[in-house]
Amino acid sequence: MSKRTLIKDIFQNKPIGENLCVKGWLRSIRNSKNFSFMVLNDGSAQSTLQIVFDPNMSNYDEVSKLLIGSCVSVEGEVVESQGKGQSVEMQAKNIEILGSNDESYPLQKKATSLEFLREQAHLRPRTNLFGAIFRIRHHMAMATHQFFGDRGFYYLNSPILTAVDAEGAGEMFNVTTMDLGNIKKTDKGEVDFSKEYFGKQTSLCVTGQLEAECFAMGMGAVYTFGPTFRAENSNTPRHLSEFWMIEPEMAFMDLDGNAELAADYIKFLISYVFEKAPDEMQAISNYHKFQAKQNKEEFVDHIAVLEKVKNSKFEKITYTEAIDVLSTSGKKFDFKPEWGVELQTEHERFLAEEHFNGPVIVTDYPKDCKAFYMKQNDDGKTVRAMDVLVPGVGEIIGGSQREEDLGKLLKRIEEMGMDKEPLWWYIELRKFGTAEHSGFGLGFERAIRYITGMKNIRDVIPFARTPNNCDF
Amino acid sequence: MSKRTLIKDIFQNKPIGENLCVKGWLRSIRNSKNFSFMVLNDGSAQSTLQIVFDPNMSNYDEVSKLLIGSCVSVEGEVVESQGKGQSVEMQAKNIEILGSNDESYPLQKKATSLEFLREQAHLRPRTNLFGAIFRIRHHMAMATHQFFGDRGFYYLNSPILTAVDAEGAGEMFNVTTMDLGNIKKTDKGEVDFSKEYFGKQTSLCVTGQLEAECFAMGMGAVYTFGPTFRAENSNTPRHLSEFWMIEPEMAFMDLDGNAELAADYIKFLISYVFEKAPDEMQAISNYHKFQAKQNKEEFVDHIAVLEKVKNSKFEKITYTEAIDVLSTSGKKFDFKPEWGVELQTEHERFLAEEHFNGPVIVTDYPKDCKAFYMKQNDDGKTVRAMDVLVPGVGEIIGGSQREEDLGKLLKRIEEMGMDKEPLWWYIELRKFGTAEHSGFGLGFERAIRYITGMKNIRDVIPFARTPNNCDF
Repeated sequence: MSKRTLIKDIFQNKPIGENLCVKGWLRSIRNSKNFSFMVLNDGSAQSTLQIVFDPNMSNYDEVSKLLIGSCVSVEGEVVESQGKGQSVEMQAKNIEILGSNDESYPLQKKATSLEFLREQAHLRPRTNLFGAIFRIRHHMAMATHQFFGDRGFYYLNSPILTAVDAEGAGEMFNVTTMDLGNIKKTDKGEVDFSKEYFGKQTSLCVTGQLEAECFAMGMGAVYTFGPTFRAENSNTPRHLSEFWMIEPEMAFMDLDGNAELAADYIKFLISYVFEKAPDEMQAISNYHKFQAKQNKEEFVDHIAVLEKVKNSKFEKITYTEAIDVLSTSGKKFDFKPEWGVELQTEHERFLAEEHFNGPVIVTDYPKDCKAFYMKQNDDGKTVRAMDVLVPGVGEIIGGSQREEDLGKLLKRIEEMGMDKEPLWWYIELRKFGTAEHSGFGLGFERAIRYITGMKNIRDVIPFARTPNNCDF
Repeated sequence: MSKRTLIKDIFQNKPIGENLCVKGWLRSIRNSKNFSFMVLNDGSAQSTLQIVFDPNMSNYDEVSKLLIGSCVSVEGEVVESQGKGQSVEMQAKNIEILGSNDESYPLQKKATSLEFLREQAHLRPRTNLFGAIFRIRHHMAMATHQFFGDRGFYYLNSPILTAVDAEGAGEMFNVTTMDLGNIKKTDKGEVDFSKEYFGKQTSLCVTGQLEAECFAMGMGAVYTFGPTFRAENSNTPRHLSEFWMIEPEMAFMDLDGNAELAADYIKFLISYVFEKAPDEMQAISNYHKFQAKQNKEEFVDHIAVLEKVKNSKFEKITYTEAIDVLSTSGKKFDFKPEWGVELQTEHERFLAEEHFNGPVIVTDYPKDCKAFYMKQNDDGKTVRAMDVLVPGVGEIIGGSQREEDLGKLLKRIEEMGMDKEPLWWYIELRKFGTAEHSGFGLGFERAIRYITGMKNIRDVIPFARTPNNCDF
């Protein structure tokens, strides 16, 4: 048998007149008197290939009875399409059934809800919508490596298992090799962590930043791209217990350079996806349009929104100025904006969507809102933090210049009542050849949610982990 | 001040006569009567830049007393180097001290052992050797994305938290949100997993393969590249508790195609590193040469070994034939080779190093040596597994064709006494449009160890996690 050809390549090269072999899954099948048609997708592209087959085919009876989701191998000639929409189709000479399907297949043609499909996470990549989402996810990962690679950053795999609570926020998953039914205790009745696999208490990382700083202060510029974890009990469309994060960290970089890099990165992600996955973006846009119509909601074309951001200057405003804008806006918020308190999503969206009508970077937050490692401003009240806000989402990136002064860092750790011992190595970076450095973090799924316009973050990660949900 | 230029770019572009600014860390400093010299590295390249500075410089007293590891910013003119070895150097006009260093800095010029440097994992990326290793690691990651991307594979982030023991091997890390000092129990005195965050017992993944199969059976071809975990108590130079793995998975692919892809991937990794990081490879080779001399051992040039593998045909042999070769070799092994027992590293190395004198792929292992999901051969005894063995290391890749037949898979799960309930979704892939499919796994650190020739796997991962070691 001839080598398999990807459907992607057939649409790209249009090899009219060639005899080729394609393999994939049936999206639909239709039998008429003179000809039958099946529509095949192999996951290589958004496009499906129409296969025309003849009732005289030897195994026609079997083939014509195939159900949606069946897997077949088709040999045939690529011909110009007679129908509208598609440019080419295939005139089948031989169809081999690789795996048939039965009536219990959950993905029937009738529309299935996103919620139902979350329970079918092993099958949903076979759908039109999720094929698009996960190919876009792929392209955004590739865009990330290209963006940072082109700028001289080295990819760093920061550790997942850690003995440090880097954000000081708690809400970490514990990792143990003890039998939970038989926890080893000391004579005093306390958990005997010396009996653990690592000889101490360990957790899953919430960030790779601290380790990235170690590498930035030697290799110049690095970025992580790996999983991070939050054990917080947030059952919202914006939260995952396990999500991927991208964290660049650069030596010799201040907050302004950091903000510029963040803006360039977001624009690059959008441009890259527009270039590499226009069919996928269109398919998702069609989905949103259909949903809006079904729900009798106004359809906002998210591609147009992204197009605008791609060409925007990212405005900059300090937190103090932002509080001023919010307080005097006349807008009624659920939470009153007040200096010293974190901005709420409603505040962030007001700034990006109504006040600036475009992306905005808020800088210099009150130190009490932020982590211990941020560079302290001379005012004694604020730190060199930044949040990047975009219309439709709010915060998409958080970052800061890091405190590079040994004395100031130690003082802040003490002020916050943190234990400095587990951070000895992090502190030493300020002792041995310190330098100004900065970085930020982008939640990968939040970015995919933004670029696909999907409402629930569970729909942009292959297998979502959320409270009470660790299936598959 | 002028924008910073990377040392990498200075050696690449040789901008003789230009006034530029470089920033980095002192590798050495030397003062003579008329001129002083410092050697600077900024992590962007293996090369260091020599800075020549004049005793008439205003802050000469301070600068000339700087210690190794200090961080400086230098403005000056790029000139042709008078010394041997380097092509260009910089005539400093102004040197700013960003972060000085003190006598307690652990990385002094005198040779420091790898073991000591493991305890200084936050600083070792600043050394010549580890800069090389971690830049090579970066290039191998980029090579991986390019290799699979060019072949139409989509990048998949398989989940880290899981309720499934995919290899059935135990030795998994438990993940819990319970207070270990106060584990919730049922009335029967058993651990009450319903009180867990996920409502059930969960662990850290040992593989992403099962989830990759779900995606391959919809998107055609995917690959994972993420962390995996083993809680086994192996304190060896070959084992890590947390390591990164690359797992491609392809629909419509048999074991032969799988083996071909694996061989091409290894060759590609070698070629890519040779092309992108020749200076780093040379630096590591020099290190090995020096070590061999110190230890009065024979120096084996690992670059030459890799060069040979890069141009090799990967031989193929079945497990049964391999046992025959080993049994009749006349070689005395610690473990006697015997049909039905896993090959030991000594066997694997004999095959690759002595018998074939090159890479070899062993296929069709006894089913009892392998996991439940491998495709069963008609002989009833063996499965379509493969291990790729390379000289100097032994096994570097393990893979298989997967059992796509629903009945056979269910029977094997039963035979092995496994619980099929948690695998319902995996089993369904065989029910709804099944197809032959295959994949393999490459331990990323094993591959880096192989390509760098480093003896201990802890030296090729940024922060190693091993029994009793979860520092940083």
